[in-house]
Amino acid sequence: MTQPDVREMDLHHLKITDPFLGQYQQLVRDVVIPYQWDALNDRLPEAEPSHAIANFRLAAGLDHGEFYGMVFQDSDVAKWLEAVAWSLCQKPDAELEKTADEVIALIAAAQCDDGYLNTYFTVKAPGERWTNLAECHELYCAGHMIEAGVAFWQATGKRHLLDVVCRLADHISDVFGPGENQLHGYPGHPEIELALMRLYDATQEPRYQALARYFIEQRGTQPHFYDIEYEKRGRTSYWNTYGPAWMVQDKAYSQAHQPLTEQDRAVGHAVRFVYLMAGVAHLARLSGDEEKRQACLRLWENMARRQLYITGGIGAQSSGEAFSSDYDLPNDTVYAESCASIGLMMFARRMLEMEGDSQYADVMERALYNTVLGGMALDGKHFFYVNPLEVHPKTLKFNHIYDHVKPVRQRWFGCACCPPNIARLLTSLGHYLYTAREDALFINLYIGNRVELPVGEGTLRLRVSGDFPWHEEVQIHIDSPQPVEHTLALRLPDWCDAPRVMLNGSPCEGDTRKSYLWLRRAWQEGDTLTLTLPMPVRRVYGNPLARHVAGKVAVQRGPLIYCLEEADNGSELHNLRLPATAAFREMPGKGIFARQVLIQAEGWRQASAEPESQPLWHYDRAPTEATPQTLTFIPWFSWANRGEGEMRVWVDERP
Amino acid sequence: MTQPDVREMDLHHLKITDPFLGQYQQLVRDVVIPYQWDALNDRLPEAEPSHAIANFRLAAGLDHGEFYGMVFQDSDVAKWLEAVAWSLCQKPDAELEKTADEVIALIAAAQCDDGYLNTYFTVKAPGERWTNLAECHELYCAGHMIEAGVAFWQATGKRHLLDVVCRLADHISDVFGPGENQLHGYPGHPEIELALMRLYDATQEPRYQALARYFIEQRGTQPHFYDIEYEKRGRTSYWNTYGPAWMVQDKAYSQAHQPLTEQDRAVGHAVRFVYLMAGVAHLARLSGDEEKRQACLRLWENMARRQLYITGGIGAQSSGEAFSSDYDLPNDTVYAESCASIGLMMFARRMLEMEGDSQYADVMERALYNTVLGGMALDGKHFFYVNPLEVHPKTLKFNHIYDHVKPVRQRWFGCACCPPNIARLLTSLGHYLYTAREDALFINLYIGNRVELPVGEGTLRLRVSGDFPWHEEVQIHIDSPQPVEHTLALRLPDWCDAPRVMLNGSPCEGDTRKSYLWLRRAWQEGDTLTLTLPMPVRRVYGNPLARHVAGKVAVQRGPLIYCLEEADNGSELHNLRLPATAAFREMPGKGIFARQVLIQAEGWRQASAEPESQPLWHYDRAPTEATPQTLTFIPWFSWANRGEGEMRVWVDERP
Repeated sequence: MTQPDVREMDLHHLKITDPFLGQYQQLVRDVVIPYQWDALNDRLPEAEPSHAIANFRLAAGLDHGEFYGMVFQDSDVAKWLEAVAWSLCQKPDAELEKTADEVIALIAAAQCDDGYLNTYFTVKAPGERWTNLAECHELYCAGHMIEAGVAFWQATGKRHLLDVVCRLADHISDVFGPGENQLHGYPGHPEIELALMRLYDATQEPRYQALARYFIEQRGTQPHFYDIEYEKRGRTSYWNTYGPAWMVQDKAYSQAHQPLTEQDRAVGHAVRFVYLMAGVAHLARLSGDEEKRQACLRLWENMARRQLYITGGIGAQSSGEAFSSDYDLPNDTVYAESCASIGLMMFARRMLEMEGDSQYADVMERALYNTVLGGMALDGKHFFYVNPLEVHPKTLKFNHIYDHVKPVRQRWFGCACCPPNIARLLTSLGHYLYTAREDALFINLYIGNRVELPVGEGTLRLRVSGDFPWHEEVQIHIDSPQPVEHTLALRLPDWCDAPRVMLNGSPCEGDTRKSYLWLRRAWQEGDTLTLTLPMPVRRVYGNPLARHVAGKVAVQRGPLIYCLEEADNGSELHNLRLPATAAFREMPGKGIFARQVLIQAEGWRQASAEPESQPLWHYDRAPTEATPQTLTFIPWFSWANRGEGEMRVWVDERP
Repeated sequence: MTQPDVREMDLHHLKITDPFLGQYQQLVRDVVIPYQWDALNDRLPEAEPSHAIANFRLAAGLDHGEFYGMVFQDSDVAKWLEAVAWSLCQKPDAELEKTADEVIALIAAAQCDDGYLNTYFTVKAPGERWTNLAECHELYCAGHMIEAGVAFWQATGKRHLLDVVCRLADHISDVFGPGENQLHGYPGHPEIELALMRLYDATQEPRYQALARYFIEQRGTQPHFYDIEYEKRGRTSYWNTYGPAWMVQDKAYSQAHQPLTEQDRAVGHAVRFVYLMAGVAHLARLSGDEEKRQACLRLWENMARRQLYITGGIGAQSSGEAFSSDYDLPNDTVYAESCASIGLMMFARRMLEMEGDSQYADVMERALYNTVLGGMALDGKHFFYVNPLEVHPKTLKFNHIYDHVKPVRQRWFGCACCPPNIARLLTSLGHYLYTAREDALFINLYIGNRVELPVGEGTLRLRVSGDFPWHEEVQIHIDSPQPVEHTLALRLPDWCDAPRVMLNGSPCEGDTRKSYLWLRRAWQEGDTLTLTLPMPVRRVYGNPLARHVAGKVAVQRGPLIYCLEEADNGSELHNLRLPATAAFREMPGKGIFARQVLIQAEGWRQASAEPESQPLWHYDRAPTEATPQTLTFIPWFSWANRGEGEMRVWVDERP
């Protein structure tokens, strides 16, 4: 089959004008990026030290001292640079750009003559390069640096970091491959695969695509590279505090237990899985590799139909930050790392580019509006690493199955992967809004924006406005100076039963393919598409095989999942009941919920008088009397912004 | 207040004639004791090595070699000896007694000249005696050996092991105490406190009671002994695989975070808690120490009203095998160690002796008939260490929050505390049936038995018969040759609404105090009390603060908690619903359930057709259709005797 041609070049410069997500972008610009810059430079007394910039100064020979931090500390700098790159697209900032240029100069100075670049190995363990791919994130850090280099070039046109990462990628391409004198390895933590595919997109250099393919195809083959290198280095382990080289032993943790084309379930570390699959889907599309495409479809299907939280979270357990068995989706001991949902959006975006199927955008939107947004506090300075769907703070500090769960967002983490990842995702949102293929321009997310895209010989200028996800109406204005013949494919979201589309005030018809409405026309200035996506409050029920939610109900409006919080509803939320026939009222939020839509319904509380004086077990008669109570639901992404308290997504229904 | 005088001497020789528990005692005699003897001697190819007897041979200088096993390996031998002692009371066995005598001779040979006795320290670390009480179970092993010595003397009249343990206790009493040249410490794992109280009962030697009091009162005081000894030994840790001396740091784990009289919640390791409290309650009664009695009442109350599973299990979490917060009683990630419920019975028995209050017997009975019996398979060769109330085997191997949970009973464990503990409990049941106080003979459990007890100048001979817990009628026959004036106090169980008592065919009246019916009379041969304890199937509801069970129902009959198993009800048990008005049918069990009463009710299964082909999330309409299904409940203690499958105690009710 012919693979779709995706043109993303001009999506980099798309301007977000969305009232809701625009605020988040502004928060990233004004708060997150400066805050993280301070963190990288150890200027935050309240946060754990980072030392990330200092490590580069050591590697560059500008300072003397010891490397400090995780083996993947470099990646924090790379992710920060990528966020800066995309932020500069949204809003030029000469001072910020100058700071970034200086960091890039520092990185260039830290690069070895042969192109190698990694401060841990350069400063701390120079003799150990490429000896521990299973555990040491060397290719992972390279991947993030490559992404930053590509982003900086795409955003600013400057090649400085791109040149650095091309030299790095060339070096890696010399070291790894099927040749006799090459290493036959691949990373424990995937990331470089998707980065190399982006580098290929940017440079069209075939060896980068070939290197990505090599890493992907080598993965999980026998004899196993992780075992070989483990023996070769004398059975040492980087993570010795956690027992004897378990990352080497537990190959499913890194999706390296078997070749990808033989796998049929999403397993292991959730972030690693989606990062890997984003690269695989990108390669499958570009190379027209049907076997890889089938692996993507199959593993997506397993993940999305059996292992995906309603909030767009993945990774049901803390141990290994990993997937569990099919349908095992506990709400309270869940992991659902923010980074995993970001990686899920990346995977979904690549699937969408390949398949043009709205199911991928549905998941992408679910992840964005719930877990990704929820990962950051409304102040831009506090972050969730773990995103539970149910929290009972009184228990957290007593029962160690909750050791990974925090009842409120934390400041900077020792392992600071999530905050900079959220920052780069929110600043690069443009890439997720549209899929610009030869056959159509897919509009995936109805986030307000302005964009100009070359189509054939003309230029399609679009302006999307509205107040998504709060208001049902979205307008798509055509501002092209010349008429442009092209197809616009409007996504019809899974949560919307009766979408309506008007063109210049009249109903308009088109083909619906894979839940996109395909509209072909010579679009011209003044054309306005009005998309109405009714978003009544809906009840969501879980598949009966998902035992943690079977028999319960969740509340959703548009793409937003709602929850009960103790601040509105009192404690012991598990005793609240939502009648099956209860009507929902939408209410404008106030204070920190300003501009948000809150939801109320008349429900019940099952509780006995003075339960603490009652016995634990009652015979023959439920110890509870139902009393009427108004239930207030808030959007789940904005929970835990009012201090510590209970929260719950899934509620018992009362017939 | 005057403390009750408890006379247990002649309860040792009580004969169990109960059809149901008699079978278990026979199983212990015929299977468990021989099997465990083989285990202690490393004759079981399928079990982990024990080396416990071999260690004693090393310590006795009879062999040369290295110590092998846990630091508390000796206690397995002591518990086995105690089980043998009580088994010999039930049924003489010359060969078994000879084997035990040889083991005792070996133990005596392994004892040091100064009375010290512990093979780990004698063989492996002779210079390290008494340097690590927090971590090393040295006093714990001594406690179990003391218990065995007392039991052997009480059961057989032979003093050989009693003399050994008196020398051991004398030695410990020299080493520990308030003197300047004494150690001011106490054990990390309580056990010796209750053992010393038993030794005091047996010998009336005041220094044993004083030593128990010293250990109890010293516990949790500042400066903290665990810190002092930790510094003194150079900050070494025995359990170095689990991180830096966490047992020293986490003092609540050992109930050593503060003095007992200041504690208000049951915390830490559940077995340690109940072992400690059994000793404290015994001491409180004997010494009339009101402050200790209040601590017992307070901590019991917290445990029984807020931290006790319906199955009589305690310890809600695997981490630290510990209690959690109040009302945090997860059914699937629970620990509920078999040993903890045995210790709970020991604590309850001591409370009962002190208080004469049926609430303690209620918990004792709940623990016995559910978790303790459930800890052993019906073949006597497989054991549960952890006793969950809900198991979903498909998930166990994927989600590591279940790493401690086994879906079927295992053979011998590396840490083999539970199997020999179950054996000694089942053989010593007689001590739990009655509380022989001066003011009354309390009949706590209606297990068939024959007993002779001295009362004043006469002898009360009783014979209890029936088919408890399956049949409601229990008969108590008086076989005393001479009339004996005394009070019999018959327990009226919490699960029974309308108990009836007849004396020689006529209704009989008495005072009811703390749910015991006090009957005073000159009892004479031929008198027969007929106790009818109606045991209709009852529904049990949880306190609404217990969020894992709120809104659900459990099924109980008599003291037995019932459960659903996959073998009878199919998989995905969480989709079954018990109608609020459903009638229960009692059914005679067959095969492995022979003589048991099973229960059925007409219920529903919520399930959609082909759920695996359905999406995870459904909008607006629950994806399930209810289809009628007969629900079959089996006694929970007998679950997992038909291979691996789902099991569930708490069921959703359908209004």
